[in-house]
Amino acid sequence: MDKIKPRTMSGFQELMPQNQVYFNEMAQKLRESFSLYGFTPLDTPLMEASEILLAKGGGETEKQVYRLTKGDTDLCLRYELTASLAKYVALHHGKLVFPFRRYEIGKSYRGERPQRGRFREFYQADIDIIGDGKLDIINEAEIPSVIYKCMTSLGLCRFCIHVNNRKVLSGFFAILEISNATEVMRAVDKIEKIGEQKLAEHLVTDLGLTTDKAAELISFVKHQGDPFEVLGKYRGRNEMFDTGADELGIVARYMSSFGVPDTHFKIDLSIARGLDYYTGTVYETFLLDYPEVGSIGGGGRYDELAEYYTDKKLPGVGISIGLSRLFYILQEQQLLNPDVLSAPADVLIIPMTEDLSHPIILATQMREAGLRVQLYSEDKKFKSKVAYADKLGVPYVAFLGEDEIKSGQVTVKDMQSGEQTQASASLVIAGIAEKIKTRRMLPPILEAE
Amino acid sequence: MDKIKPRTMSGFQELMPQNQVYFNEMAQKLRESFSLYGFTPLDTPLMEASEILLAKGGGETEKQVYRLTKGDTDLCLRYELTASLAKYVALHHGKLVFPFRRYEIGKSYRGERPQRGRFREFYQADIDIIGDGKLDIINEAEIPSVIYKCMTSLGLCRFCIHVNNRKVLSGFFAILEISNATEVMRAVDKIEKIGEQKLAEHLVTDLGLTTDKAAELISFVKHQGDPFEVLGKYRGRNEMFDTGADELGIVARYMSSFGVPDTHFKIDLSIARGLDYYTGTVYETFLLDYPEVGSIGGGGRYDELAEYYTDKKLPGVGISIGLSRLFYILQEQQLLNPDVLSAPADVLIIPMTEDLSHPIILATQMREAGLRVQLYSEDKKFKSKVAYADKLGVPYVAFLGEDEIKSGQVTVKDMQSGEQTQASASLVIAGIAEKIKTRRMLPPILEAE
Repeated sequence: MDKIKPRTMSGFQELMPQNQVYFNEMAQKLRESFSLYGFTPLDTPLMEASEILLAKGGGETEKQVYRLTKGDTDLCLRYELTASLAKYVALHHGKLVFPFRRYEIGKSYRGERPQRGRFREFYQADIDIIGDGKLDIINEAEIPSVIYKCMTSLGLCRFCIHVNNRKVLSGFFAILEISNATEVMRAVDKIEKIGEQKLAEHLVTDLGLTTDKAAELISFVKHQGDPFEVLGKYRGRNEMFDTGADELGIVARYMSSFGVPDTHFKIDLSIARGLDYYTGTVYETFLLDYPEVGSIGGGGRYDELAEYYTDKKLPGVGISIGLSRLFYILQEQQLLNPDVLSAPADVLIIPMTEDLSHPIILATQMREAGLRVQLYSEDKKFKSKVAYADKLGVPYVAFLGEDEIKSGQVTVKDMQSGEQTQASASLVIAGIAEKIKTRRMLPPILEAE
Repeated sequence: MDKIKPRTMSGFQELMPQNQVYFNEMAQKLRESFSLYGFTPLDTPLMEASEILLAKGGGETEKQVYRLTKGDTDLCLRYELTASLAKYVALHHGKLVFPFRRYEIGKSYRGERPQRGRFREFYQADIDIIGDGKLDIINEAEIPSVIYKCMTSLGLCRFCIHVNNRKVLSGFFAILEISNATEVMRAVDKIEKIGEQKLAEHLVTDLGLTTDKAAELISFVKHQGDPFEVLGKYRGRNEMFDTGADELGIVARYMSSFGVPDTHFKIDLSIARGLDYYTGTVYETFLLDYPEVGSIGGGGRYDELAEYYTDKKLPGVGISIGLSRLFYILQEQQLLNPDVLSAPADVLIIPMTEDLSHPIILATQMREAGLRVQLYSEDKKFKSKVAYADKLGVPYVAFLGEDEIKSGQVTVKDMQSGEQTQASASLVIAGIAEKIKTRRMLPPILEAE
């Protein structure tokens, strides 16, 4: 038979077993963190009718969408999680309780050119709090603490959450009498990428600002020192600006009650986020040692979640963590915690007798005690059996021969230390369980402070 | 703005928040069960190049596949998990350690006519053990114990795992000198659906068996009493039959060491499984009270996992649990455990003061202790705030007013009993944590024995 060459398509992250364990562990830590803040899990379809997903219409993204026809139906694979949430809330509005807090960790699809850390199939981890008509500012102050909890539970410590408010920027543009505010907002969003010099040129040459205004704008957004000082300077000249400054004040004030230390949080007036969608507090999260990577989690406050599907006013606040990308960066930087148990089993039982009843009973006993066990039953040389555990990183090997069975003992080898001991099954199980327990609680990432 | 009517496509299971919690809990129990048996998690792409997914070719399934073109690439959404596994093992063969045990719980897609409990987007939970060249029979004896563990950890008790061996059937067909064995195997697979009478007619009229042979075949596969008695009767007449009978003997003998009680397991000579793919032990799992539902989890031994992609001989054994369908049945039969905490939070904090620092600090404290907490900060009447907890099923509400803050106390209402108590934050936290703990360990399904 002619063989078809096995391959995985470019841009599709297919992990080897050990890396998959780390990835799953990261997703699990995010789930646990989101749950502590009362977010409920959703799992919406990966495909929607095209009219739903493309309601927003236009733009680069639409070109990247995976679209197909099945029967009479025009379908798209989702390219982000927000449209699915908007549809869900609009559709099930009467059955939901508001404010509605949901998280979703799921795959999305974009047919962009694959690059290092950019995937065509990728996981995003989103949280959103949706209000019915109104949503209190306190929710905007709570979100950074969710980010902080997520990052620290992963094991990251060198990161900083940058917070700004779109009303401050919009108000400031009004004070400067900038008419093309949308374009200028998008330009400011690129400041980290292109630098102050290039931004100034762009503002003057392409967007028609005077040199003075461009300079004043850049000096405002890149202000060093206390941000509330520069905010104070412009107060009283524009209502929206003042509201934004007030909101930033509230967010900053409650942040530490919410458990975010000063060291991990910064008011940064240059944070704009490109999308027109945002109307209040905006967030970006940066890894201190990998600024070139850009934001690994961002979001903000918006006023209209589902305007394409319903007349209902549904304001919200949310963030999105690019999980596939984050994982890619962390493993590339070799920050995966080597002490995490990434082996598929805690114990490999190697039977030394023809009849397998005793080893099988031992496996059953160990599993009942919560240990993850493989029984090695293949017909191989003793050495290959032990090598199997070694290659997989299984931390303990249990041998069960005639002698052990007669004396009711089990011989156990600690694969890391090489130490070999003999004891009763229940003692062996208790001993392994104790040692495994600590390793199971380790964070997936190990980053030095 | 014109609105687009929000809708979810027919055949796509989109769950309400509380049901999603049950679904996730079921998936989690399966993950935990698979892990105890040393299966490593994989998460393969949902899309593959069409040449890969359709390598097996032909049949009904190919018509149901969601296929699309993006740029120059011809793509398919997977319609099961096995082809992805086969490609994975063929592609990464050199980096994997064999026997390779993996589980995958993921979505697949089939454009079939949606029916009750049949979805176009659905979850399957698969486990497979793949050998490199060879795979010991013990693995076939272990699989039913994984099924048993899965079902009981979900909370099911009224189910039975039916086991047979394809070699027994093939050998038996040879003994009866049946030449069209493939067609007869597929016919036998339908016995539960169509009944003995119709099967006999079908065998005689359509498949050309004599009335006697059809009767002998049916009397064999539907044999009541000890299956090894009827197996013994035909022994010595066909080598494959004898091998199959031996294998069934081994599987049955080790089953109870693996922890499967006699009550939940049955040698059933009528189990055939339609696919040509299987070559040894085969399994089906039935819910005793819902036989009309058919098998909720089946699989078996095969000899060629990846023959379309590699010359390497990769025998294996596996099962697939139709998770979306199983969930649909169980919730329809109202078997979801009502005591499971399906609310998004354990505690709702209702602040009674203007300044929110104290309630926020309390929320942070509770979260640090592992409680899932929502802080209610919306500007609503007191009654609506408590009603919010009630509608979501949040079990505890904590009130924090001036008096409580002054005296360092928290008032807590148990929403189920209506009882209201006052104590220090740490006592309140410990009390709730204790009560929540037991509810967190409940199985998602509650079925009376």
